[in-house]
Amino acid sequence: MQSFTFHNPTKIIFGENTIGKLAEETPKYGKKALLVSGKGAIKKNGVYDQVIAALRQAGTEFAEFSGVQANPVLSHTRAGIELAKKENVDMVIAAGGGSVLDEAKAICAGASAENDVWDFYTGKAEPQSALPLLTVLTVAATGSEMNGGTVITNEETHEKYGWGHPLLFPKVSILDPSTTITLGAEYTAYAAVDAATHLMESYFTCEDTDTLIQDRYVEGLIRTIVDVTETMIRTPDDYQARAVFMWAATLAWNNIAPSGVGHWCTPNHLIGHSMSALFGTPHGASLSIALSGWLVWYSGESGRNGAKLAQFGKRVFDINEPVTVRAAELAIEALRGWFHRIHSPTKPADIGVDDAGLLQVAENVEFCNPHWGMPQYNKDLVASILKLCR
Amino acid sequence: MQSFTFHNPTKIIFGENTIGKLAEETPKYGKKALLVSGKGAIKKNGVYDQVIAALRQAGTEFAEFSGVQANPVLSHTRAGIELAKKENVDMVIAAGGGSVLDEAKAICAGASAENDVWDFYTGKAEPQSALPLLTVLTVAATGSEMNGGTVITNEETHEKYGWGHPLLFPKVSILDPSTTITLGAEYTAYAAVDAATHLMESYFTCEDTDTLIQDRYVEGLIRTIVDVTETMIRTPDDYQARAVFMWAATLAWNNIAPSGVGHWCTPNHLIGHSMSALFGTPHGASLSIALSGWLVWYSGESGRNGAKLAQFGKRVFDINEPVTVRAAELAIEALRGWFHRIHSPTKPADIGVDDAGLLQVAENVEFCNPHWGMPQYNKDLVASILKLCR
Repeated sequence: MQSFTFHNPTKIIFGENTIGKLAEETPKYGKKALLVSGKGAIKKNGVYDQVIAALRQAGTEFAEFSGVQANPVLSHTRAGIELAKKENVDMVIAAGGGSVLDEAKAICAGASAENDVWDFYTGKAEPQSALPLLTVLTVAATGSEMNGGTVITNEETHEKYGWGHPLLFPKVSILDPSTTITLGAEYTAYAAVDAATHLMESYFTCEDTDTLIQDRYVEGLIRTIVDVTETMIRTPDDYQARAVFMWAATLAWNNIAPSGVGHWCTPNHLIGHSMSALFGTPHGASLSIALSGWLVWYSGESGRNGAKLAQFGKRVFDINEPVTVRAAELAIEALRGWFHRIHSPTKPADIGVDDAGLLQVAENVEFCNPHWGMPQYNKDLVASILKLCR
Repeated sequence: MQSFTFHNPTKIIFGENTIGKLAEETPKYGKKALLVSGKGAIKKNGVYDQVIAALRQAGTEFAEFSGVQANPVLSHTRAGIELAKKENVDMVIAAGGGSVLDEAKAICAGASAENDVWDFYTGKAEPQSALPLLTVLTVAATGSEMNGGTVITNEETHEKYGWGHPLLFPKVSILDPSTTITLGAEYTAYAAVDAATHLMESYFTCEDTDTLIQDRYVEGLIRTIVDVTETMIRTPDDYQARAVFMWAATLAWNNIAPSGVGHWCTPNHLIGHSMSALFGTPHGASLSIALSGWLVWYSGESGRNGAKLAQFGKRVFDINEPVTVRAAELAIEALRGWFHRIHSPTKPADIGVDDAGLLQVAENVEFCNPHWGMPQYNKDLVASILKLCR
């Protein structure tokens, strides 16, 4: 175990019919809110009406800002910041999935700052304050509801960057699993891949080996995610499966998994973000592709990596194979098998990206990499990793 | 999964040589602190000097209140409250193990109240405010460093009661595993039993069955605790084993494990607390005794309980036994085997309590039970459970 600081002050309110509890929370943070949402899904599934009813009950005034897209973009974020400033709001309420939450975080930081919000993502500025954020989550996947991270795409420069700050932890996040049952099979699968990948990044890349707690935490959650994903796809209105997945996705990216593991990095997100920035690939789809190649490359890197993959296969997929190299191969096959069963792509061709596109991804990674700080992943390495995807 | 609220705002600073970071934290909470400690262990292991140096560096004034005993008592707590009021402190700093932290929480609540502090433990009063608490933990076991719970014994009435409140979460807890290497084999074992029992209470008593996440979380942590306890006993200065155990003990009782499992209760703590209140039994020792009998009674209660025990045995102790009843028996034997290996007692006679004493425990449980709210555990049931301990 390595030294760490863990501080996650977000209050989680979890369960069916909990959105009304927003009325008890907003008065703690002021009188007027900016309600940020996406392209209208919350108006169809009743979430919008519940949020509005809670705000009226609490006597919280609000302005509305909708239209956040999947892979949220900088131009729309800037418009939200302008509106938050103009309306002089005290807080931001995000109602939607991870993209809505991420853009809302950017609005919270940008509305309290003089500088352009993109400066936070490029490291040119640090926030001194941020508007308080409350969220009503309707898609479980990104973990944004219980962390200080946010990802925005600068659509002019094709840069998709993540950035995090303690000021951006939501004060309160309301998680009602019944709001997620309208999510279709395709995006349910991508959500599961996203949550599982969050757990795998620190699990596989961490520098420390005394990670007994963190390993079992990750393995238990991934096993649980694998257990419930096919149920969600087969029976979309299975509340229990949705509830288990929703809490698993939150626990997957709320800083517990990497605490104490020392240095770690996110190569699959690095590659996946470039794929999304260039081709609009859904985030989860880009991750199952990246992982399919990256794990093969990783397993060949050192004996230790193979052993970690063998442990993963044994504990997550019950693979009983004494030979480490073979056990590692079987672990990758088992994970790919899961991707295939839930119809998440595993190679660039699955999403229509040919060899030329693959090179574009590798070039974009090298272009964006100064931001990520993983210099090892240069253009050539990324291209060779992407060629291992199958 | 059942509905729940999870909110744990404690900031954890974990690692070797982290006590000095107290200097960055105290100025956030005021100018003067009450430094609460035990019977002098921190003066021997250097923790006291590090805390004082940090307070001097921060310019934080302080008064001192030492002498907290294991199983902290009400009279001493009241004296601490009096001193906190007289010295008009802004915050409390607890430096020590779980007992020191628990008494410090009582001082935080009592120093801000007009009523007697025991009224909080008996449910006669609710705190409106509490002094902020910062802790420097030197014994990993109770989880008090990351929750709002506190246990105090009223030595006049032989009542040992737990009580919890959101106001009592420490603001900051500093966990330096190197401070725990001076803990002897006996109390290291009791600490491990305590942490493991925290996890087992909600695991075995919860009403819900859709607890995939919580089950794997608990099983993973108990397995880890079992893995490192004998190492700590054999090689007390093994920093990594101490570090893994310290973080495991915190994660064992910080509200993650029971979140979403619905109603649950703490029968082993109920029985164990009475044993400690009457005979001064170390907390962990009382729990390994209680569990040895309670699990046998529990496994016979319903088919579901036997299946849960079989699952426990399979996932924690690798027991591959297809017959549920037999698998449950083997799980209990495996757990008892662990208690025996680390020399934690499993029957009342091990701590010199005879049949008459056993009945006293059963009577004390019935006397205290209105506080705990587990009416099922009347005198007769507790006596029969204690007779199953062997």
